[in-house]
Amino acid sequence: MSTTMRLIQPRILKGFRDFLPSQAIPRQEIIEIVRRVYEAFGFQPLETPVLEYADILTGKYGDEADRLLYRFQDNGGRDVAMRYDLTVPLSRVVAMYQSLPSPFKRYQVGPVWRAESPQKGRFREFYQFDADICGSSSTLADAEIIALICTVMQNLGITRFTADINNRKVLNGIAVLAGIEEGDTRRVFGALDKLPKIGQEGVREELLREQTTYADQETDGRLANVPIIKPGFPPEVVAKIMAFAMIEGENRPLLAQLTSMFQDVPVGAQGVRELDEALDALEAMGIDERFVRVRIDIARGLDYYTGIVFETTLLDRPNFGSVFSGGRFDELIGLFTGKNVPAVGASVGVDRLFAAMEELEILPAARTITDILVTVFPENAQESLKVARELRASGLNVEVFLGEGSSLKAQLRYANVQKIPVVVITFPDRMAEGITIVRTMQDGSQTEVRTDIVSVVKSTVRQVKEAGDAPA
Amino acid sequence: MSTTMRLIQPRILKGFRDFLPSQAIPRQEIIEIVRRVYEAFGFQPLETPVLEYADILTGKYGDEADRLLYRFQDNGGRDVAMRYDLTVPLSRVVAMYQSLPSPFKRYQVGPVWRAESPQKGRFREFYQFDADICGSSSTLADAEIIALICTVMQNLGITRFTADINNRKVLNGIAVLAGIEEGDTRRVFGALDKLPKIGQEGVREELLREQTTYADQETDGRLANVPIIKPGFPPEVVAKIMAFAMIEGENRPLLAQLTSMFQDVPVGAQGVRELDEALDALEAMGIDERFVRVRIDIARGLDYYTGIVFETTLLDRPNFGSVFSGGRFDELIGLFTGKNVPAVGASVGVDRLFAAMEELEILPAARTITDILVTVFPENAQESLKVARELRASGLNVEVFLGEGSSLKAQLRYANVQKIPVVVITFPDRMAEGITIVRTMQDGSQTEVRTDIVSVVKSTVRQVKEAGDAPA
Repeated sequence: MSTTMRLIQPRILKGFRDFLPSQAIPRQEIIEIVRRVYEAFGFQPLETPVLEYADILTGKYGDEADRLLYRFQDNGGRDVAMRYDLTVPLSRVVAMYQSLPSPFKRYQVGPVWRAESPQKGRFREFYQFDADICGSSSTLADAEIIALICTVMQNLGITRFTADINNRKVLNGIAVLAGIEEGDTRRVFGALDKLPKIGQEGVREELLREQTTYADQETDGRLANVPIIKPGFPPEVVAKIMAFAMIEGENRPLLAQLTSMFQDVPVGAQGVRELDEALDALEAMGIDERFVRVRIDIARGLDYYTGIVFETTLLDRPNFGSVFSGGRFDELIGLFTGKNVPAVGASVGVDRLFAAMEELEILPAARTITDILVTVFPENAQESLKVARELRASGLNVEVFLGEGSSLKAQLRYANVQKIPVVVITFPDRMAEGITIVRTMQDGSQTEVRTDIVSVVKSTVRQVKEAGDAPA
Repeated sequence: MSTTMRLIQPRILKGFRDFLPSQAIPRQEIIEIVRRVYEAFGFQPLETPVLEYADILTGKYGDEADRLLYRFQDNGGRDVAMRYDLTVPLSRVVAMYQSLPSPFKRYQVGPVWRAESPQKGRFREFYQFDADICGSSSTLADAEIIALICTVMQNLGITRFTADINNRKVLNGIAVLAGIEEGDTRRVFGALDKLPKIGQEGVREELLREQTTYADQETDGRLANVPIIKPGFPPEVVAKIMAFAMIEGENRPLLAQLTSMFQDVPVGAQGVRELDEALDALEAMGIDERFVRVRIDIARGLDYYTGIVFETTLLDRPNFGSVFSGGRFDELIGLFTGKNVPAVGASVGVDRLFAAMEELEILPAARTITDILVTVFPENAQESLKVARELRASGLNVEVFLGEGSSLKAQLRYANVQKIPVVVITFPDRMAEGITIVRTMQDGSQTEVRTDIVSVVKSTVRQVKEAGDAPA
């Protein structure tokens, strides 16, 4: 604040956003709806730090993701990074605290950071809201996560969506049938994951192309991240992968077809069995079968998935991509402890979902946070404070006008801008006669009140809210 | 997930914390209570990014604080920093969006980062929950923020606390009386702020000692941060400062004494007037006068304060320091726009408050998130899913047991660990007879239910909760 200070241009980093109240309020509503569903399924809250030691995060998501980390040296020279998702921090927690109950079902909501190129609907800071079950290998857990997704979507008022499900073991089975070595399967999954973005032709080309990956290698006792150049897959192998991945059908017939394909491929057969059991459980859970579709071209990009994987698309806004996705990651926690803990979970992309709902005009009606504005006039400002206090004590949200300028017009304009439905007018001369005025902003109607201002205001607020809820 | 991967030790950065559900649940409750009070006073939510351009944050808090920023180059070579508080980002927002209503009353909750030495009750990542009024220079706004603090504390069940208030203008007046130049006043405030930590003798020594500060200076057209060595204040000046700062008294008599001291010091007299008006407004707002105390040794450390400043201490845990503090910062927004916007606000230190309440054993009773555990047995798992679905549809929070091992004993042990009050037991042979068993965990009592499981379970849960609420 030295007088030699130059003006600093107020600006925000690209890919980062402010949420002003008009957006923050419906965002909060969405998060509350999701939270209520998560809690209805027995998930409990967890919070973890934004910063982690970098090696906690690296090597789990895949090479591409590692390069998108916000990673730096802190003031103490530690190699740290901002969290890239909420799944790896959860795995670190489960590995660290041996006393956690098993299964450990937790939810967590918060921002994550990825240094991607910002584009429509893609941000560098965005919110995830995850629910995960750690310590259960049961396909009931797989099904519960899918049921959770479907229930969240319905509670948000979204009825036209599909949860597309697949299983990494099915994809591993396809890789076996196509003659791909185990070490190369992730490359296939990574390419398939881009299907909605780059199309079949794009995926085919990516698989045929030479690829550079990076891996830690020990040379002279020192660990270094070195490039590894891999040739493209042979055309006949690529053709096989594409042919398999394009097989479509109704859920159960498709699974039957896969079963016969995987007669001699145990891993593939196991994947089909897991999907089949999950579908059985979803039926028992009363999830409408039209919401869930088996699609063997769904792979998910992250390295850590091992079993079921899924994505959720809004049928009326497929261009927003998956708004709710996840899968099983049975080997992630083991990276910390050497002992695998089976786990499965899903993550809502709060920002994509919000943006899609905004476009579809199905955002929750912005709740009016402030019910009442009490006017202030210099001659009797303290009277306004007393009225506000009484109204607040009755449970109403009450703002006292603190702006510059004290004309009634200015104060009503403020109520209008802020969408405050009821104004209590405290004209000094009328208050001296014992009269307070209650104004409904929508129609400008006013009531003079001599006694029991609280009950008059409460009933006015109630009437306004009921009128607002009624169909137009 | 390559097979050559070494185990990574699961660990967390010093000064950072995980909040497991047993802590996350009461923290959420506290945040909800604060939010309800903020909304009752007409504040609305705002969210801002965790990362800002570094120059948005630097030069506002003071030299010491600037060195505690988590600051780094991002992947695009931009100089960025993690937010140090929520006040400067708010000021950036008010400067950036000219269309915001005035006054703009917002709340924001979230973590902030300071690379301080971790010690008991002090963390590198901690939560702040702020409420600020931008666009009002009125002392009613000062009073509203103090009233907000008092109401939050009372709603949290804290009755033994004091909000200590002062005004930077009063301190400026004292500086004038002690013969200190305007450019040196911040140094005095910084030293006084350490009074609770280092005592009177410590403050005296700090004021007498030579001090090195840093400032941006232009040399050959380039801006550099250079050290500036300042001599200590003369002993007679320090003696005067200390004598003034130690003046104590009841609120109104103290203000009267200051008024007579400041007869020829307009800035000091103005500060006294502002405190006096705020006390008047607090009376009208019904705030018990024992909660608010004028203390002229309260300075607050941050550079940006210009008017009223305050701290809130728990009388039974003064060692936790201030849990709720803030002040007026009329010149901060002007650093971005050149045009000052008057503003005042406060911040709850959620973590300190939580820790203090934990020690005082006055944390909100941990709400039981999960009401029911439904057992699972392999022979009829789908029946469990159906029961759970019915119960959930009635509004209960229901967990289906997904753990390994399916003995009833293991499942009841899990309910016990998770403090789930009611278990629905789905023995296959009993279910085949149409019987489900509802068990109350506290006393082990069981009811056999043939029809209308939902209403039996609901009334059981209600009974358990009522028993839990009753005095022991």
